[in-house]
Amino acid sequence: MTLSLNQWTTRRWSVAEAVDGCVRHGLEAVGLWREKVAEQGLAESVKLVREAGLRVSSLCRGGFLTAGGLPGEEGRRAFAQALEDNRRAIDEAAELSAACLVMVVGGLPGVKPGEALPASGFSRDVAGARGRVAEALAELAPYAGERGVKLALEPLHPIYCPDRAVLSTLGQALDLSLDHPEEQVGVVVDTFHVWWDPRVFEDIARAGRRIASYQVCDYLHPLPQDILLGRGMMGDGVIDFRPITQAVLDAGYAGDVEVEIFNADIWAADPDEVVATMKARYEDVVLPVR
Amino acid sequence: MTLSLNQWTTRRWSVAEAVDGCVRHGLEAVGLWREKVAEQGLAESVKLVREAGLRVSSLCRGGFLTAGGLPGEEGRRAFAQALEDNRRAIDEAAELSAACLVMVVGGLPGVKPGEALPASGFSRDVAGARGRVAEALAELAPYAGERGVKLALEPLHPIYCPDRAVLSTLGQALDLSLDHPEEQVGVVVDTFHVWWDPRVFEDIARAGRRIASYQVCDYLHPLPQDILLGRGMMGDGVIDFRPITQAVLDAGYAGDVEVEIFNADIWAADPDEVVATMKARYEDVVLPVR
Repeated sequence: MTLSLNQWTTRRWSVAEAVDGCVRHGLEAVGLWREKVAEQGLAESVKLVREAGLRVSSLCRGGFLTAGGLPGEEGRRAFAQALEDNRRAIDEAAELSAACLVMVVGGLPGVKPGEALPASGFSRDVAGARGRVAEALAELAPYAGERGVKLALEPLHPIYCPDRAVLSTLGQALDLSLDHPEEQVGVVVDTFHVWWDPRVFEDIARAGRRIASYQVCDYLHPLPQDILLGRGMMGDGVIDFRPITQAVLDAGYAGDVEVEIFNADIWAADPDEVVATMKARYEDVVLPVR
Repeated sequence: MTLSLNQWTTRRWSVAEAVDGCVRHGLEAVGLWREKVAEQGLAESVKLVREAGLRVSSLCRGGFLTAGGLPGEEGRRAFAQALEDNRRAIDEAAELSAACLVMVVGGLPGVKPGEALPASGFSRDVAGARGRVAEALAELAPYAGERGVKLALEPLHPIYCPDRAVLSTLGQALDLSLDHPEEQVGVVVDTFHVWWDPRVFEDIARAGRRIASYQVCDYLHPLPQDILLGRGMMGDGVIDFRPITQAVLDAGYAGDVEVEIFNADIWAADPDEVVATMKARYEDVVLPVR
């Protein structure tokens, strides 16, 4: 297991700056975001990570597949658009030789991330939305497989079920992945999202080689008003990391460990200090005691 | 299934006022809170509900059993205190002939509900905390059984895992209940807490006669800053109630349906208007279409 910087942790950094930062701090891998790759340019991003000798531990993110749950033409168009956008994300992941494309599958149809419920035109049918995700995956998995890309289904904490991901538990994501070959569809274990789950150790063991990505950050308490930013540096919240890390190791995961933190204070801090703290905390609280 | 007013929905009302309100609005049952019963006096509260001919659909609440997870003497003392307080709650539920005593089991040891994490002296051992709940239940269930009281384990939305309940899913609560006779320990199905759970329909069916209470309120999106107050009037949030109600009916539940809403706007409104709205919404969005 090797530490990787997910570039959203040092959000101010461009791809070029994040690559430089990883090299400067002796990291071997980086997790990239599509927005940042687009700003840098895809070809330039590929060149930068290759020349630096970095692995791309993940590309974030595909998904948002549930809009197809809206009725009629609007739903059909949204579904087709989501599929098309995800094919582009898969292409980018292939170019970057990313270990996986992280999939945040989307919330209730018609509910926009971080926005209030619309007065009408949204759906409360969470089971239906989950069905749309399965349908979309059946379209996308073979496309990903042909390009050597693994889709990594990320269950999000249930607090994000309305607007970001109707995949709410590791077990649910794992069950969904099993319809597809292991090299096409896996799951993400992100400590923030799964720490509370009474079945998490059982499901990590069951996931085995389906674990496509292990992401760590802490769960702050109380959460800030913008719940998206409730992720903290490891050690600053309530998560007991070592047993989870040990379980992921025992399941056979040998990939990179990404630190992905959405947090206003961390985004405001000096990125080099953030990376230094991240490295220290990784040793102190994430890795199992040898 | 008959509608019941959980008195926290009309929080300004004393037990006497809530009993009057239920009678005035033609309700047959009321869910009471220990704080309110203490203010009214236990004997007086018993007299009020009996004379009004109301059922007490639940007494809220026992629990907060996890402090025993702190080390040493502090933990032992906290555990003994929690047991003693819960025996008093059981006694009160028996006096009131409450259909159940709702159990909110408590969060991580040393983390106080709604407060920031202490600098030290709390535990991140969520599995250990769950173990303390099982231990406490082994002590309390026979005591409850001797007094004809059913303990109703309430799984809370995972967002409350740090500070209020390490029971996070219906399946987990149900598994815990199975160590005890059905008349001593059951589970609460509260739509706010379980709507997102991909296993909820399976677990409601599995729970069957273990369902001791069915509580309804909506899940608001986005949640307010104080997440405890993110509960809304049915129809104001993201929950599709009818399939859940149908599943609870199909599982054999024939008790009262309590509306329990924690919401600053609803607490500020005229309680009679709140009860009128509650009755209308219950018909409109909670009961399955006949």
